[in-house]
Amino acid sequence: MKPWGAIATWRMAHDGVLAAKELIHQQASAELACETLIKKVEDYPFYKSVGYGGLPNELGVLEMDAAFMNGDTMAFGGVASIQDIKNPISVARLLSKEKFNSFRVGEGAREFALSQGLEEKTMLTNRAKRIWEKRVEEIEEHQLDPYDGHDTVGAVTLDLNGSMVAGTSSSGLFMKKKGRVGDSPFSGSGLYVDSEIGGASATGLGEDLMKGCLSYEIVRLMGEGLSPQDACDKAVYAFDQKLKERYGKAGAMSLVALNNQGEWGVATNVEFTFSVATSTTEPTIYIAYPGPNQTTDISEVTPEWLEAYQNRITAPID
Amino acid sequence: MKPWGAIATWRMAHDGVLAAKELIHQQASAELACETLIKKVEDYPFYKSVGYGGLPNELGVLEMDAAFMNGDTMAFGGVASIQDIKNPISVARLLSKEKFNSFRVGEGAREFALSQGLEEKTMLTNRAKRIWEKRVEEIEEHQLDPYDGHDTVGAVTLDLNGSMVAGTSSSGLFMKKKGRVGDSPFSGSGLYVDSEIGGASATGLGEDLMKGCLSYEIVRLMGEGLSPQDACDKAVYAFDQKLKERYGKAGAMSLVALNNQGEWGVATNVEFTFSVATSTTEPTIYIAYPGPNQTTDISEVTPEWLEAYQNRITAPID
Repeated sequence: MKPWGAIATWRMAHDGVLAAKELIHQQASAELACETLIKKVEDYPFYKSVGYGGLPNELGVLEMDAAFMNGDTMAFGGVASIQDIKNPISVARLLSKEKFNSFRVGEGAREFALSQGLEEKTMLTNRAKRIWEKRVEEIEEHQLDPYDGHDTVGAVTLDLNGSMVAGTSSSGLFMKKKGRVGDSPFSGSGLYVDSEIGGASATGLGEDLMKGCLSYEIVRLMGEGLSPQDACDKAVYAFDQKLKERYGKAGAMSLVALNNQGEWGVATNVEFTFSVATSTTEPTIYIAYPGPNQTTDISEVTPEWLEAYQNRITAPID
Repeated sequence: MKPWGAIATWRMAHDGVLAAKELIHQQASAELACETLIKKVEDYPFYKSVGYGGLPNELGVLEMDAAFMNGDTMAFGGVASIQDIKNPISVARLLSKEKFNSFRVGEGAREFALSQGLEEKTMLTNRAKRIWEKRVEEIEEHQLDPYDGHDTVGAVTLDLNGSMVAGTSSSGLFMKKKGRVGDSPFSGSGLYVDSEIGGASATGLGEDLMKGCLSYEIVRLMGEGLSPQDACDKAVYAFDQKLKERYGKAGAMSLVALNNQGEWGVATNVEFTFSVATSTTEPTIYIAYPGPNQTTDISEVTPEWLEAYQNRITAPID
């Protein structure tokens, strides 16, 4: 049986991973599988850090970032700070077909999307707006720091032809400054893929992730023969340590990887959920923690965790 | 004698390299040396691809990109698609001090710059506007492709304390689409530096450079013990070959590198000038070409070359 697979960051990606599995079984390309996976996350209104329902910047404006890379050709497309387009990942995929101007920001990215017939949509939901309003009040009352949520969906897919693709989509840091962009749309930091080796993608504090180019490094280590798990452990924990020594602290960082044999791995310096389905792994939501001696502890999430999660993300906002 | 050095892309960087040398001799930091080097290029009106005098996008609007990285702390700051700020490199340097929101695009980047007291300036010169107008006419008359000039200034500096910094500044592709961003402001692609190893920076077709993360890769190879020249040759020619095989073609790419011993190297797949001054290299403008067997041919530019260059960049625009 030919290897195939899909892996993506956070529990929120699970429905997308299931959709990617179905598509790959139907001989769909890794490109379609990856785009579809991420669109599922972008479209679901209760995920607060990606696409529709994402939380806005400090001015209440929802700005989104996304990128798409084809591991056969190394073609790369990205958008940053794009507003009110239904699926930023689809803009990034279309841009990856362009020889020039394949990374665009702001209104230029939006105009490209509209010129290609992609759907316009008001992406700020009433729920997200209410969360933002409450946060503005809390910050004013208690002099709190802005919340640093930053749950990018990052995905890698491998189809039955051996083609691999990586993609990311994020609304970035909640309460971010206008025009702030994290690592998600940047090649080597947010994502990297080479079908002759494998792919990787990141989530966490973009400001720190872009200091490390960990997605590129993990792919490179897999190219040296390391398993995805060993590559993730080696790259992530060494860089976490380096940042603490040199920068004084290291923000959250969680990486997922998949190689072209359908083997996968993850590493993280925080609690981190992810979803994976491959030729040898049934579709599963796992939870990972940093383990001893620069390893990663990985187990299936419990039904109790899943129920608490669903209750949390759909709880009424007073 | 303690090693020190400054290297930067293109002949246009030479005055900046001379200024960096003076500063480093006066015990200035690698940060100040790098910022000053790049400001010299940004401020000179006859350099068409960086800062003041840079050529605009297809709508006649000058959008600029810049980044700044400190190799002691790995702190990274960047801006993209910023308009009418005198020195984008200074915005990037200030952003590199921020723990959050250290990469900003468009109006958000500009507002940050103004909030920090950085100078506002109309960056589109009459000369650049005239070149753009002529190009628009030529494209209409002859169905030409837009010109793909993309001469980023990318620099690496090493001060007498062993601190290293890398920076880039670019107005990007002439006639680019609105909001287009190249590799220049992206960590790992446009620049990367680690004071325990060295630094590297890129110029060329950003769309292709960001497929490769070559600045990161060159620093990594130097960390494995390769000389800057060997690291540049190994990374650049392998990736050029890979892109031709996998993507079908490879755009212009030229990389410069400096290690923390003041040794330097470059590699390029086109004619490429650069400037360097170190503890053992007198300030010199060199010209480089791809050589045989994945090596680089490097020689000093001739006085004739320099004169022709100066005449070309200052020639009247009819």
